[in-house]
Amino acid sequence: MSAVERALAEAEALVPEALRRLADYVRLPAVSSDPERAADVRRMAELAAHDLRAAGLAGVEVLEVPDALPCVRAERQVAAEAPTVLVYGHFDQQPFDPALWDSPPNQLTERDGRLYGRGAADDLGGWLSQLVAFRGWEAAGGPPVNLRYLLEGEEEIGSPNLGRYMDAFPDAFAADVMVLTDCDNPSTEVPGLTVSLRGLLEVEVSLRALAGKVHSGLWGGALPDVSVGLCKLIGGLVDEGGRLAGLEQPVDAAWRESVAGLSPSDEDLRRDAGLLPGVSGLDPGGRPRVEWMWRQPHLTVVATTLPSPERAANVLLPEATARLSVRLAPEQDADEAFAFLRRRCEELAPFGLEVRVERRLAAEGWSYAAEGPAFDAAARAYERAFGRPLVKIGVGGSIPFIALFAERFPDTPLVLNGVMDPRTSAHGPNESLDKELFRKVVRANVLLLDELARVADDLRR
Amino acid sequence: MSAVERALAEAEALVPEALRRLADYVRLPAVSSDPERAADVRRMAELAAHDLRAAGLAGVEVLEVPDALPCVRAERQVAAEAPTVLVYGHFDQQPFDPALWDSPPNQLTERDGRLYGRGAADDLGGWLSQLVAFRGWEAAGGPPVNLRYLLEGEEEIGSPNLGRYMDAFPDAFAADVMVLTDCDNPSTEVPGLTVSLRGLLEVEVSLRALAGKVHSGLWGGALPDVSVGLCKLIGGLVDEGGRLAGLEQPVDAAWRESVAGLSPSDEDLRRDAGLLPGVSGLDPGGRPRVEWMWRQPHLTVVATTLPSPERAANVLLPEATARLSVRLAPEQDADEAFAFLRRRCEELAPFGLEVRVERRLAAEGWSYAAEGPAFDAAARAYERAFGRPLVKIGVGGSIPFIALFAERFPDTPLVLNGVMDPRTSAHGPNESLDKELFRKVVRANVLLLDELARVADDLRR
Repeated sequence: MSAVERALAEAEALVPEALRRLADYVRLPAVSSDPERAADVRRMAELAAHDLRAAGLAGVEVLEVPDALPCVRAERQVAAEAPTVLVYGHFDQQPFDPALWDSPPNQLTERDGRLYGRGAADDLGGWLSQLVAFRGWEAAGGPPVNLRYLLEGEEEIGSPNLGRYMDAFPDAFAADVMVLTDCDNPSTEVPGLTVSLRGLLEVEVSLRALAGKVHSGLWGGALPDVSVGLCKLIGGLVDEGGRLAGLEQPVDAAWRESVAGLSPSDEDLRRDAGLLPGVSGLDPGGRPRVEWMWRQPHLTVVATTLPSPERAANVLLPEATARLSVRLAPEQDADEAFAFLRRRCEELAPFGLEVRVERRLAAEGWSYAAEGPAFDAAARAYERAFGRPLVKIGVGGSIPFIALFAERFPDTPLVLNGVMDPRTSAHGPNESLDKELFRKVVRANVLLLDELARVADDLRR
Repeated sequence: MSAVERALAEAEALVPEALRRLADYVRLPAVSSDPERAADVRRMAELAAHDLRAAGLAGVEVLEVPDALPCVRAERQVAAEAPTVLVYGHFDQQPFDPALWDSPPNQLTERDGRLYGRGAADDLGGWLSQLVAFRGWEAAGGPPVNLRYLLEGEEEIGSPNLGRYMDAFPDAFAADVMVLTDCDNPSTEVPGLTVSLRGLLEVEVSLRALAGKVHSGLWGGALPDVSVGLCKLIGGLVDEGGRLAGLEQPVDAAWRESVAGLSPSDEDLRRDAGLLPGVSGLDPGGRPRVEWMWRQPHLTVVATTLPSPERAANVLLPEATARLSVRLAPEQDADEAFAFLRRRCEELAPFGLEVRVERRLAAEGWSYAAEGPAFDAAARAYERAFGRPLVKIGVGGSIPFIALFAERFPDTPLVLNGVMDPRTSAHGPNESLDKELFRKVVRANVLLLDELARVADDLRR
């Protein structure tokens, strides 16, 4: 039996114990957004440090920078000439409202092969799947690569201090490959690696007409009306199908083929996003729906200065402003998108109203070439573990820590995987981990270290 | 010298003293919307009662109903067979912000032939112009008709208790003709009688898509978006010119001809409504602009449930609601207008969103035939006093007391005049009364009683 086969067998045997341990993690409400839960986040850091030590890792340490929640580091050096793999995960969790859950959020509960609990998949199960793989290798004589673990306590609040940790502890992050455990799979059957994130552009559009409020009865009909104008302008930015007009991005046919079968149906949207009966998802117009979610821009209105119903007054307003949020396609240039939107708003300016368009924030998307030895190694590992071809997926939102890694370590290959699937409901009620998927990802992670070791010469810089 | 000529001369001579007395009225901040000013409103009632008594009127009384500000009544019976004319006015005022005024709001200040002060025209100068006309007649031997005065203390808050006063003191309102002193003239040169008011329809439009909020990054592009949809729906209700599409009302050519020269220019809008430089009024499309202000419906958005900028969140909302306010054309049927709007919103429902349209309130407009002996008598009086033909004007808003009179006394002719002109800025800062206009209206009011006496047989019922 080869080392990798022994590691697979050992890891497989450790899964039941690991899932019991997951129940201990889930019990701790380590909600980073809630200052009153800071002690629980710290307790979780200690628990993780304990288990990293128990697994045989060295240099286990709870890291601190001022005014931040902690990180945890650990490492295992096997050979100077072996490549170093950094495993990133996070141990903090999203808040939760027990009233919306079918079982207590902090009590890991099995139903139909899934384990329900806050953090079960995002991301406690994620880094645990890596730790189990490591323990499998340890039991089989030691891993074939050098390893570092870096677990964060602030991912769910946007990793505001991760850059400071990188500055303060550069050697905790140094690696030839980074593996990030916080991502999704297209289904429990199909392995996925995340290769793109959309960017974000926030724009403020203001219309002005008058020096002050005037009586809508006396003047309505004579003066241009900013409240109606703002609606008409925003309505003009989207087409009849609800798509931001004029900013569509080219997507290649090969990519479309690769995601065949991944798009959520209306029934999936009803179950996973709460789409109401009688309402359909936006018409994807013959394209994969995931293209619209991952690879195309999307406009929404996140705020306006129009009065709330409690403050309704029969007046014509002097000015009105909308804050528009545009999810940018992964490759889309934020400057160009902003210039287009500004020009479009100026063209649309209804009834001759004075229009002002300002950029509030912009974050480019992230699009990963997803090629090269590390990615190919990951593809082999995942395909072997799942018995199915790997799918390159995207994420419709922005994930600050990935953008930060990509920016700080532009030459280091990134492997973004995880234990989530579309039914996971990360951030929502009834978050769950599929037990069989967890088992497959553990296998894939064992194989991943083996595959990375095989391309060691290509990875070391 | 005829009686009417003597009355004209006597009234003319009383004008300077009356304008000094107006300064005393203006000094009292009788702001009915401010509970802390209730004592001033009552003081103003006493002042008015004193002057009505001093003028020689009988039965002067401050009227009260519980939980309301007072009214004041007075009367003068000259002959049982003479018709009775009810003069309505109000002595309460709009609130004011001295910071926006060029002179103290409670100190009547003359500049360029105009008297600036809160209430100077709306409506202290209005009923004072009638009182001066009465005093002119008294000095000339007595008026040719029976007269009643009814002055209200709550007009500026929408006359909420005027109906109760009508119930409690029916004989204070009984009359063959009502003359209401609270209206406008097209200019200081041209006399006007108000013959129409727009109605008001408030509609709530709601769009629903989801059971709860979802992450706009993860789902934006897959789900129909109520915030964008609401804007698109509202934008679809108005045409490119800012006009509520499909609800236009027929207006006859004779009416259009009668208002030639009355429409405000862009420069007028800048001065009177605060239109900004560089922005134009809505294009009237070759029609008189006053048609759009008085005789056509107009849509505005008075509130939405979209978040304010402080509460902006990058989410897709489960639902969104707008409160729409439609000024109805005077003759427009509120039920039909609502049915049209509901159907139109359902047709427009963007992206297949679930739409609900509810009526919140509806008040029909008021359109007065403006014919018959009382109106003709008024026309003769005004044309003679101004030396210019009378113009029938409209008001773009609703005026509760007029609607109430029209409803309670459907067969009693209404003469709606006053001492305001487009520069008066009633309800706004720097309210003013044109001295020459006041003098002309006093003349017109003297002549009005004479003309009404001449058609006595047609007026008495």
